[in-house]
Amino acid sequence: MLVNGQSSETISVQDRGLLYGDGVFETILCEGGRPVLLAGHSQRLENGCKRLNLPRQDLPTILSDIRQVAGDDDCIVKVIITRGAGARGYKYSQNNNSTRIVYRDEIANFPIEYYTQGIQLTQCEHKLAENGALSGIKHLNRLDQVLARNEWDDEYQEGVMLDNRGNVVEGTMSNIFIEKNQQWITPKLDHAGVAGVMRQWIMRNSYHADMECLEESISLSDLQTADALFVCNSVIGIWPVASFAGKDYSVSDATKIVMSHIHDNLSKFYLV
Amino acid sequence: MLVNGQSSETISVQDRGLLYGDGVFETILCEGGRPVLLAGHSQRLENGCKRLNLPRQDLPTILSDIRQVAGDDDCIVKVIITRGAGARGYKYSQNNNSTRIVYRDEIANFPIEYYTQGIQLTQCEHKLAENGALSGIKHLNRLDQVLARNEWDDEYQEGVMLDNRGNVVEGTMSNIFIEKNQQWITPKLDHAGVAGVMRQWIMRNSYHADMECLEESISLSDLQTADALFVCNSVIGIWPVASFAGKDYSVSDATKIVMSHIHDNLSKFYLV
Repeated sequence: MLVNGQSSETISVQDRGLLYGDGVFETILCEGGRPVLLAGHSQRLENGCKRLNLPRQDLPTILSDIRQVAGDDDCIVKVIITRGAGARGYKYSQNNNSTRIVYRDEIANFPIEYYTQGIQLTQCEHKLAENGALSGIKHLNRLDQVLARNEWDDEYQEGVMLDNRGNVVEGTMSNIFIEKNQQWITPKLDHAGVAGVMRQWIMRNSYHADMECLEESISLSDLQTADALFVCNSVIGIWPVASFAGKDYSVSDATKIVMSHIHDNLSKFYLV
Repeated sequence: MLVNGQSSETISVQDRGLLYGDGVFETILCEGGRPVLLAGHSQRLENGCKRLNLPRQDLPTILSDIRQVAGDDDCIVKVIITRGAGARGYKYSQNNNSTRIVYRDEIANFPIEYYTQGIQLTQCEHKLAENGALSGIKHLNRLDQVLARNEWDDEYQEGVMLDNRGNVVEGTMSNIFIEKNQQWITPKLDHAGVAGVMRQWIMRNSYHADMECLEESISLSDLQTADALFVCNSVIGIWPVASFAGKDYSVSDATKIVMSHIHDNLSKFYLV
């Protein structure tokens, strides 16, 4: 584990990342030490720092930290940037340092059936509130996701989160796509949600599966009338949805194509 | 500084308090080592743990920690309870330990004019979203307050935060009361906001100033037509508002009475 480039497993109890969730993070799959989707992660981190007025980060330094903790291994690397320790209170100083935390976790091993047959999806009771100033950013205020994910145990693999108006936003740890009439549609994230790196990659590469991909408002009934559904993130890749709200879905041909594509082009850990 | 009762200035970088803001906190004024408004702080902490399904805390242990860090001194003690370190992901284990952090800060010395003449109040652009599951709790997801407080520097002492519907909720670090027709009205906090310990104390003790106190929805125009305004929290006590949105307010007699009352009964640090 590295904290500001130095070997450490701890941070100050006065770090604003702890006190206020004042920071951003990325969770990056590394295959043989190579960070997968690095450009997307870097861009989102940089954008998040800009939106929260965090000090601009030196991306080569972060990459060097990632390489140091990952070595040549398959692993998950977490990068956290906080506003560091400062005076008490919400006001921050413009010359606050930031804290850069980089550490590795074990690679996640998910059952092959999640990829081949799909997952059980549920609907979370807990709603996401509209907060345009924070939408899209992967910030450290994640109590919404904690509350939503803990509504169930292991009977489902993911849960759909709605906003206060009833629109579908995302999963607790993933983005969601619906397939309908040879189109993929994923919720717009202008007022809530995290702009996933895998989501972005799929939107840009949907043409490989001969699919058009749109960002639109999606309702629960859109999910129920979809031809197919999948969820995605940069650690799991793509999980097709096998069932949601009493309806069974099969894995569409287009989903299979894009799953093969991310397996062949991004990482073998994105199973097909 | 104490972490789980042991002397330490750091916590694990894998603590969920840092990773997700998964925890609650209290900021307690101590006068000569005595925690002021302890019952209110304890109740809110206990209630917050219950609402977030955090392990139940042993209040005598927390009080013992507070006494240890405060000694016989005047200081501010911060108590943070997090869900501790656990496996990666939003799902938590029911047998997760919690992390208990207790440390002290210097006493805050505010200009006497904030009490005698009142403060300059502004209106924050950043809005609070509706989130009934988290309303009232003093949890660690405080990016809304960080963004709002950093809209200005030192030209104001506090800013009013509205919800997405335009209702007044609170200040960035305080609750707000308006005075009108011999009544105090403070916003209901059923869908956003922190249920302040000083707010609660004032509501219960308003009769000492011959005032009725109500919780209601408050709009910006209610602020502008009020006879007087004040903000409060358990560190500052009560700050009357001298000006807001181009209007000047004077310190009402009822405000002076309740300020004297908290000074005489709670702490000499609540200036009059």
